[in-house]
Amino acid sequence: MRFPPPRLPIFDWIPTYDQKTFTSDLLAALIVTLMLIPQSLAYAMLAGLPPEVGLYASIAPLVLYMFFGTSRVLAVGPVAVISLMTAAAIGEHASAGTHAYWQIAITLAFLSGLILLALGLLRLGFLANFLSHSVVSGFITASALLIAANQFKTVMGIRVDGDNFFVLLKNLLAQAPHTHALTFLVGIGTLGFLFLTRHYLKPNLIRLGIPPTIADIVGKACPVIAIGLTTGLTWGLSWDQAGVKVVGFVPQSLPPVTAPLWDISLWSTLFVPALLISIVGFVESVSVGQTLAARKRQRIEPNQELVALGACNLSAAFTGGFPVTGGFARSVVNADSGARTPAAGLMTALGIALTSLLLTPVLFYLPHVTLAATIIIAVLSLVDFKIFTHTWHFARSDFYAAAATLLGTLGFGVEAGLIVGVLLSIGLHLYKTSEPHIAEVGLVPGTEHFRNVTRHHVMTSPIVLCLRIDESLYFANARNIEDRLNAEVAGRSELQHVVLQCSAVNDIDASALESLENIEKRLRDAGIKLHLSEVKGPVMDRLTKTQFLKNLSGQVYLTNYRALQQLDPGTFARAAML
Amino acid sequence: MRFPPPRLPIFDWIPTYDQKTFTSDLLAALIVTLMLIPQSLAYAMLAGLPPEVGLYASIAPLVLYMFFGTSRVLAVGPVAVISLMTAAAIGEHASAGTHAYWQIAITLAFLSGLILLALGLLRLGFLANFLSHSVVSGFITASALLIAANQFKTVMGIRVDGDNFFVLLKNLLAQAPHTHALTFLVGIGTLGFLFLTRHYLKPNLIRLGIPPTIADIVGKACPVIAIGLTTGLTWGLSWDQAGVKVVGFVPQSLPPVTAPLWDISLWSTLFVPALLISIVGFVESVSVGQTLAARKRQRIEPNQELVALGACNLSAAFTGGFPVTGGFARSVVNADSGARTPAAGLMTALGIALTSLLLTPVLFYLPHVTLAATIIIAVLSLVDFKIFTHTWHFARSDFYAAAATLLGTLGFGVEAGLIVGVLLSIGLHLYKTSEPHIAEVGLVPGTEHFRNVTRHHVMTSPIVLCLRIDESLYFANARNIEDRLNAEVAGRSELQHVVLQCSAVNDIDASALESLENIEKRLRDAGIKLHLSEVKGPVMDRLTKTQFLKNLSGQVYLTNYRALQQLDPGTFARAAML
Repeated sequence: MRFPPPRLPIFDWIPTYDQKTFTSDLLAALIVTLMLIPQSLAYAMLAGLPPEVGLYASIAPLVLYMFFGTSRVLAVGPVAVISLMTAAAIGEHASAGTHAYWQIAITLAFLSGLILLALGLLRLGFLANFLSHSVVSGFITASALLIAANQFKTVMGIRVDGDNFFVLLKNLLAQAPHTHALTFLVGIGTLGFLFLTRHYLKPNLIRLGIPPTIADIVGKACPVIAIGLTTGLTWGLSWDQAGVKVVGFVPQSLPPVTAPLWDISLWSTLFVPALLISIVGFVESVSVGQTLAARKRQRIEPNQELVALGACNLSAAFTGGFPVTGGFARSVVNADSGARTPAAGLMTALGIALTSLLLTPVLFYLPHVTLAATIIIAVLSLVDFKIFTHTWHFARSDFYAAAATLLGTLGFGVEAGLIVGVLLSIGLHLYKTSEPHIAEVGLVPGTEHFRNVTRHHVMTSPIVLCLRIDESLYFANARNIEDRLNAEVAGRSELQHVVLQCSAVNDIDASALESLENIEKRLRDAGIKLHLSEVKGPVMDRLTKTQFLKNLSGQVYLTNYRALQQLDPGTFARAAML
Repeated sequence: MRFPPPRLPIFDWIPTYDQKTFTSDLLAALIVTLMLIPQSLAYAMLAGLPPEVGLYASIAPLVLYMFFGTSRVLAVGPVAVISLMTAAAIGEHASAGTHAYWQIAITLAFLSGLILLALGLLRLGFLANFLSHSVVSGFITASALLIAANQFKTVMGIRVDGDNFFVLLKNLLAQAPHTHALTFLVGIGTLGFLFLTRHYLKPNLIRLGIPPTIADIVGKACPVIAIGLTTGLTWGLSWDQAGVKVVGFVPQSLPPVTAPLWDISLWSTLFVPALLISIVGFVESVSVGQTLAARKRQRIEPNQELVALGACNLSAAFTGGFPVTGGFARSVVNADSGARTPAAGLMTALGIALTSLLLTPVLFYLPHVTLAATIIIAVLSLVDFKIFTHTWHFARSDFYAAAATLLGTLGFGVEAGLIVGVLLSIGLHLYKTSEPHIAEVGLVPGTEHFRNVTRHHVMTSPIVLCLRIDESLYFANARNIEDRLNAEVAGRSELQHVVLQCSAVNDIDASALESLENIEKRLRDAGIKLHLSEVKGPVMDRLTKTQFLKNLSGQVYLTNYRALQQLDPGTFARAAML
């Protein structure tokens, strides 16, 4: 375990910072700022927090990431899934919109920051590997569906409860008669506008001869246009008087200085949610970072990313924010818009800070339903059902893990879903390794190579049984292997030798050693010698420390080929003639 | 998942049962009955139950095992570790010795029976494999120490509390001045007598010319002699008047008909202890059964054993007993005394039933301290510290698992200890597989075999890098392998081909497939082709379902040898000349 070097990533790029890089960064920052304003407001609302909190959470974290992060283009701030998890975690402790709720959000960001920092300093980033690709996919899809269903009530202008996706759907249907017509019209209109512009605007603009970069920026600006349009209409036509809910008064201020609640019992109940938020946020952030870094042959250092995200969340906690992480869409936009260094993040932070200080009165007439439509369009792009058909054909265990995570999350909430998914994927992996594939192998004619007798045309010997065990030998499969070997040997009356080909045995533990000793003893009693072949270095190192090799009735051969050559020269001679 | 055949194991031996087998079984039953009487009383006391409950628990289960069990000689009844776990589980709900306590013990046996039966019918016996040999050893040693310390307070004639072994020791020392002298004298005397006769009597009798079988029976009878002697002395010298605690009035009766408490909230709190009792009991019983079966080339069917133990525990619940399992000492004695079929168990049950009906008045003056001494001598033979030195040298992960289980059990009780041990051993295994061994391999001259370049004198090629990944590719190591491969490739400017030797890759999942695709893409961008070799059947079956093989820049070779032969004929020719 090495500790990270004291060198901050910022010193990797600061010395070569020049005018050209600055111009690139500034342009990217402008575009990302325009995109972040509605997103920040929307995700704060999704988390059950006042809209300005979304802006606060998009300022300090961006600055901190500049110092500590290893990705050049990652944009940190509120993201959909983490906002949903935040709402789920706080919901049990306070009502959305209250001051207590906000304080708990701040505390959650603080705990999440501490956890991320600790994981990074202890170099425990590998823990995130236990969230398999399938579990993450299932979780993201389920979260997106949950978020979309949750936001759809805002589109309908009704109040509906239900953490459970299915209950939520049922209640949405039951409350459908109470839909607020004008709100629903604005919502469906915005949804349609966003959907159409997202999918059809850019290609059509390009077909009309507009340069791709301009077409791209116009496409990215559409959510801002939707916000401007609906805000203007609401103001001009007094839709707020007609029952369309608006953002209303937002204080004009820079982020306040805040502190987490120092309440140990609250901390202990928030610990598991904070841990899950940290790990999900880390996995999401590192995936985005690695994807973008790979394009430019840069590298992400996962443990340093943990430190960076820890610092970002701590800074969020002290500036009135809530849990943040690296977002996918904004980071891609940042990279596509030409950002070259994290300084673009600093400029984006300045842009958001200016918005927070100056532009909040403009947001008074911004309808909630517009923000809800923005969220729905954003999260529905995360829904991925292809993973299910793909894993069904490729690896059934991945299918089960993804499906359990999806159903667990939809039916029992984000924490339960994640935990079920992780435990199931680990359990299925352990189950598979506990009943390993054991193949009888024979010599492939013309080579020195041994393969499965049932799959290849191979030569075998009546007096030598070569078995290849396709798994490390450890406690979970030790007894199983013992049983299966006994069964393989039973009924072969001519047998004089058993050779265990250990090319797939990567490790051996004390339980497995005992099973090997039992196998050896039983074979010896039956007058059969046990040999090993192709034992790898690390396994051999271990075995030489034991009595097992000294008591072994047979030998350890470098290759299976040499074993057969020596143990059954007759069959070997026939094989050599082929 | 196959369900067990409807054929009961009893029909395997009933048809050939004859007079000679009957005589053998009867003799064994007599000896085991003599041994079981004090053991049953003692283990009931250890479990916090009235002594007669131990007798009850040794009757019906023996009969049921005869019908359902697959071991010919296993003797089922109360055992030390399960009695300790029973006491720990019930202790939170009622005071030892009360009627409520007994009823909870009955309920625990019932739940344990249901769990065992369910595990057996669902063929989940493999779950027990996750209790590694090291965890079981650590647990048994810790339990034995806990039991011995607990019983030593009876030897000292004092009352001391403390679930925690260390607190218990401290309290024993603190209470030492209140030791009841006469009780202590009887206790130490009995301990000394049992210890000496156990270790020195049999060899010395044999040396004096007494036939070994007789010497053996005399040795086995010593605990009964100790009981007879101390009971007689207590009666004759009125030691009970002098403060030596005695068993007292035990009702003369066959086992009563009882039923578990139908209380769902009690069941839910007892579920985890019942599960642990079931699994530990199963592991202990199957280990004993397999050891004894192996001697006679018989076979134990683990899932049928689960059904049998389930039936035994259910029968215990309905006849006033408590959780039972197959015991080590009594089964060995049963086998050594010549038992040939489970009918010996039926006869033992009859013997215990007669004791329970007729002989209990004789037990009135039996001192508690004698029973405590019997238990201490029995459990101390289970203490095994060699496992720690052995695993320290052989496999450090086993050492940590055993040590954590030992300390967890001593410090936090039996359930916590077991759970810590199982989770730690699984966690350590997963950690190891998440950072797999990756070796650069080269051709061993004169063979077609490839081995690690750092351990063997091998030939390598400047343009072909052969890497052997010593682990299945799955989510926990996918990203790690990606990183390590990138690092291996970096800085080898002449490189044109990377061959992944997959002889140790037993499985591949969706996360790993994605990593392979990333590796391929990155190598392709660097102008390097990726090849696979020695891919096993089950892995190849999977890969052929994906686009990966179609898009692969290189090829899949049957052997690494062929890959080198084709990719670098120059180096190959040099190798062939050696």
